[in-house]
Amino acid sequence: MKKSLKELKNLSVIARGDILKMTTVANSGHPAGSMSSIDMFLSVLNRANIFPDDPFNPDRDRIVVSHGHTSPGFYVALARMGFVDIEEVISGFRYAGSIFEGHVTRGIPGVEWSTGNLGQGLSAGIGMALAAKKRGKDYRVYVFSSDGESSKGQIAEARRTAIKEGLNNLIVLLDYNDIQISGRARDILSVNIVGEYEAAGWNVIEIDGHNFDQINKALEVAENEPLRPTVIVAKTIIGKGVSFMENTPTYHGKALTKEQLSKALEELGLENDVEKYIEKRKNMALTRDKLSYPNIELNVETGQPIVYGKGEKVANRNAFGNAIADLAKLNMENFPVVAIDCDLKPSVNLEKFEKVNPEGYIQIGIEEHNAATIGGALSVSGALTFFADFGVFGLDEAFNQQRLNDINHTNLKTVVTHCGIDVGEDGKTHHEVNYIGIVRSLYHTKLIVPCDANQTDKAIRYAAKVPGNFVIAMGRSNLPILLDEEGNVYYNNDYNFEYGKLDVFRKGRDLTVFTYGSFAHLAVEAADKLKEEDIHITVIGVPTPLDFDLTQVKEYVDNTIVLTLEDHNVENGLSNELSKAMIKNSMKPSYFEPMGLKEYAPSGTIKDLLRVHGFDVESLVKKMKGLIESK
Amino acid sequence: MKKSLKELKNLSVIARGDILKMTTVANSGHPAGSMSSIDMFLSVLNRANIFPDDPFNPDRDRIVVSHGHTSPGFYVALARMGFVDIEEVISGFRYAGSIFEGHVTRGIPGVEWSTGNLGQGLSAGIGMALAAKKRGKDYRVYVFSSDGESSKGQIAEARRTAIKEGLNNLIVLLDYNDIQISGRARDILSVNIVGEYEAAGWNVIEIDGHNFDQINKALEVAENEPLRPTVIVAKTIIGKGVSFMENTPTYHGKALTKEQLSKALEELGLENDVEKYIEKRKNMALTRDKLSYPNIELNVETGQPIVYGKGEKVANRNAFGNAIADLAKLNMENFPVVAIDCDLKPSVNLEKFEKVNPEGYIQIGIEEHNAATIGGALSVSGALTFFADFGVFGLDEAFNQQRLNDINHTNLKTVVTHCGIDVGEDGKTHHEVNYIGIVRSLYHTKLIVPCDANQTDKAIRYAAKVPGNFVIAMGRSNLPILLDEEGNVYYNNDYNFEYGKLDVFRKGRDLTVFTYGSFAHLAVEAADKLKEEDIHITVIGVPTPLDFDLTQVKEYVDNTIVLTLEDHNVENGLSNELSKAMIKNSMKPSYFEPMGLKEYAPSGTIKDLLRVHGFDVESLVKKMKGLIESK
Repeated sequence: MKKSLKELKNLSVIARGDILKMTTVANSGHPAGSMSSIDMFLSVLNRANIFPDDPFNPDRDRIVVSHGHTSPGFYVALARMGFVDIEEVISGFRYAGSIFEGHVTRGIPGVEWSTGNLGQGLSAGIGMALAAKKRGKDYRVYVFSSDGESSKGQIAEARRTAIKEGLNNLIVLLDYNDIQISGRARDILSVNIVGEYEAAGWNVIEIDGHNFDQINKALEVAENEPLRPTVIVAKTIIGKGVSFMENTPTYHGKALTKEQLSKALEELGLENDVEKYIEKRKNMALTRDKLSYPNIELNVETGQPIVYGKGEKVANRNAFGNAIADLAKLNMENFPVVAIDCDLKPSVNLEKFEKVNPEGYIQIGIEEHNAATIGGALSVSGALTFFADFGVFGLDEAFNQQRLNDINHTNLKTVVTHCGIDVGEDGKTHHEVNYIGIVRSLYHTKLIVPCDANQTDKAIRYAAKVPGNFVIAMGRSNLPILLDEEGNVYYNNDYNFEYGKLDVFRKGRDLTVFTYGSFAHLAVEAADKLKEEDIHITVIGVPTPLDFDLTQVKEYVDNTIVLTLEDHNVENGLSNELSKAMIKNSMKPSYFEPMGLKEYAPSGTIKDLLRVHGFDVESLVKKMKGLIESK
Repeated sequence: MKKSLKELKNLSVIARGDILKMTTVANSGHPAGSMSSIDMFLSVLNRANIFPDDPFNPDRDRIVVSHGHTSPGFYVALARMGFVDIEEVISGFRYAGSIFEGHVTRGIPGVEWSTGNLGQGLSAGIGMALAAKKRGKDYRVYVFSSDGESSKGQIAEARRTAIKEGLNNLIVLLDYNDIQISGRARDILSVNIVGEYEAAGWNVIEIDGHNFDQINKALEVAENEPLRPTVIVAKTIIGKGVSFMENTPTYHGKALTKEQLSKALEELGLENDVEKYIEKRKNMALTRDKLSYPNIELNVETGQPIVYGKGEKVANRNAFGNAIADLAKLNMENFPVVAIDCDLKPSVNLEKFEKVNPEGYIQIGIEEHNAATIGGALSVSGALTFFADFGVFGLDEAFNQQRLNDINHTNLKTVVTHCGIDVGEDGKTHHEVNYIGIVRSLYHTKLIVPCDANQTDKAIRYAAKVPGNFVIAMGRSNLPILLDEEGNVYYNNDYNFEYGKLDVFRKGRDLTVFTYGSFAHLAVEAADKLKEEDIHITVIGVPTPLDFDLTQVKEYVDNTIVLTLEDHNVENGLSNELSKAMIKNSMKPSYFEPMGLKEYAPSGTIKDLLRVHGFDVESLVKKMKGLIESK
């Protein structure tokens, strides 16, 4: 039962009181901005096709709050619309034993996307709106934004995708209160918000953000826009409703004192029952309920692996291109299979995929921040989602977007090609040599660095099937297909990819090398050369450098000369993880030497760069012999 | 002696031949885009106030090539204007034994900024133009950009700063060839380039980018613009000058074959002497000359340290605010002392600095990518430059900008406050818990995480004085001043900050804790409590977690119960670095337990969050006693 405008107006007074109480109870939070957005929060929650009793209904409209610090306002609006309990919200806000965190948090019923880092919400909304289009659903996406965050470049990026993809199911409500932390927005940095949206081709509507009639009429126009996304630029007053809070930056990020609260509640004509909530908070435990997420598992058909044969030279990125095309063919009738590209189609090998599945190929252009967030949002909206990019762009450039995806428990499969000096001539700006270190920072993202094309094929199919975020990293070059000691294909038809499993390519007692990715074959070739001289070394592939159980190979570590060989910064890659594992398991090599990159590398062919670093097979053989002789 | 337009025109034909030869010799690189920009490269190098024989002259105009893959064009233009040797350029391009890397590289005479990752060059140019304003210099900054990179959000950010700061000494030449890797720019993602620059308030001039008369007239207008920055949007033809290369994406990133080269040189009316360069390349060594950088050292007066007294509680960020205000007072007569802020002035404590030095306070607004790059460029342009931001924004959000600063060997002092769960109630999007791991990825950036306000004061003064990039990381809370075993101030007036030195706060044989930053006092307090029970532990402060010599404290590690305690992701912080150091130095604790963050933390007061994690003093004491008893 939708509320009348009059009811909404009355509710907005109560909600303002709630906002003030909860921030005073927490002695923390952002009351004033919440009060400038609250009338729009209530209006949208009242109009939207959403279900308090079934918050994850797949046909629901999606609401994203990009200026996540207005969480008091949004939580209160959710509570007053029946999604969550108002007493829990007011007493638990920003308490370690409550789910009502300082910034809007996915996992709370009604919250579709965790934000807090500004500028990402529009891209998230675009991902959700795009998912509706791809799935033939008619739900809408409402994104709340603010003038303060409008300076973020990612928003300029996102605006273009919304136009390109014709997202008329997307509506932005922009709270224009002209106040930021440091003062008036226009003094801090003038942003021509209306002009920029117009230049990008959006439908722009300007209203008074505290006039329920104007808000609702604008929403109606926007909801019926046939072609374009709409932005409703709403002039608002920060701290609206309480005289001493209006139009001042003071209460952007500061709660009222109890005395100020009394005065404010009196002005709003509300009872002051704040002590009740303070008391309730005192009795709350520090352990909290789990956040609840909708099921994102897709029933992915992974098909038959492609096995590349002995003697072939295949780049892992080519194996990715073949595998993803295969996955598209196998699954596109059941759900969208999408691949996000940033103008690197031929390099990241999406051409075959696009041919098979043109609807699933999404060209974002050179906008990696936007692309990573769109990918994250698509991945929790019913699409099997790959984001293919060069390592430096997909991880280094978009790190904070990947971090927010990680926080949001998304289901994104990020495939980064052109990792390591294997990229060669493009030089150091393009050498992604810290991908292990970067992904190590993400608590919920798994990393796979396949050792050849066959393992790549299996890993891509594995990651497609298993819910959660994956980064699959690979180089650029054509690599030999790895063989076992008998000369047969190592990752053959019977091989199953297991996350965490180590691959023992060669066994020998003289020395042990741990390696992965595009350098694995170098160690194997060195082993085979040494064998001719009756020197026997162990070569262990570590395709999951962040998670492996070293006790699997204990016998090849303790009292053994151990090397790591990696196309990675030597300080935050495998040697790092191996050191931790050795300490953890009280293993002690007789000698340990990490071989990796100690400095940015120059431009050059991979062949030359290997020689410069002493990582070519000949140098490796020489080095290993020397170590075996001297240790 | 400046060249006439006719001479330039003739030279441009020769230069096109050079571009084609060098990419064919390298069998790699981006010839076609170089050919669309070359006429502008030559025109600007011909007009600008630059000195081939004195490339680092402090009064020189600065030229930034943001679309760094057009390096063949820019290197050739530099060579033909006398900065570098044309034979070296053609034969050495993209060879591991040459300085002429795949993307324009700072350190080559005439190259002011390494690029390759798109979208950052305009911000770099702004930093340099701003330095001219702050230093009262009248040099100009020319930035080359392209339509392809115009989609990057950082450019939208940068445009606003250029307007806000009134940078009429900044001229952008935008190569609009309408071709990207995947095809026509307008098909990949339509960007309303002229409309966006106009909406931002720039002076916009549209020209034919192959007409030397138009290029030079436009530059003259731009050079005389009294108030605003100018963008010259130049319609160009990719591959211009060779019929089969024009207007096709094929040669964006692909060299001509020898046969195609012959044909092209014939069309250009040039001799084919490519074999000479191929031969020369064959004889080049794999070792190369060092890149050469201008001296960036400033003669910084660091003054007298502020010593906070026993019993005071001071946040490290407050100590930073006091120290930077002091540094401004001491040095601002000699060179600009600037602090870059992204709308967090009160939180990062720049208010005192601004009062002392209003000219040096630079408000960028909520544009961290732009801010980080501007800071990097300012720091190599004669200003002592601090960039103050929250950890998540200054490091996670701007990681790839910091990475490019690192590649550029800048001199930026990034001060990140609000690191760790010490941030408390703002919650996980604001908890920067991977700053050690992030800075570990940067080869030329030092990290300091001071243990209290006194060490912060000394560290800030130290970093100001020592050339190179520093990240100084700190939390939010007020912290006690650390005392030695006798109860005197630990970092007292006699203390000198030494990079790499460990601080032994307490000594005891029962157990050793390594810690730093806002958790150091917890370990010290636990030690003092344990002492009352006649249990004696060692507490070691590690203010430089990326570089320390563990042999300093060998006696407290070997055969000892060792803990690390850190407000950081437990997997990529100190426990990590300590594990490596233990393995490297063959030290073996009797027991090792890393204590840190195993998951994103909820919102809450730091007091509650410490209890949730078992890091409060009471829990620590209990845990340590248990370990000492059981091990």
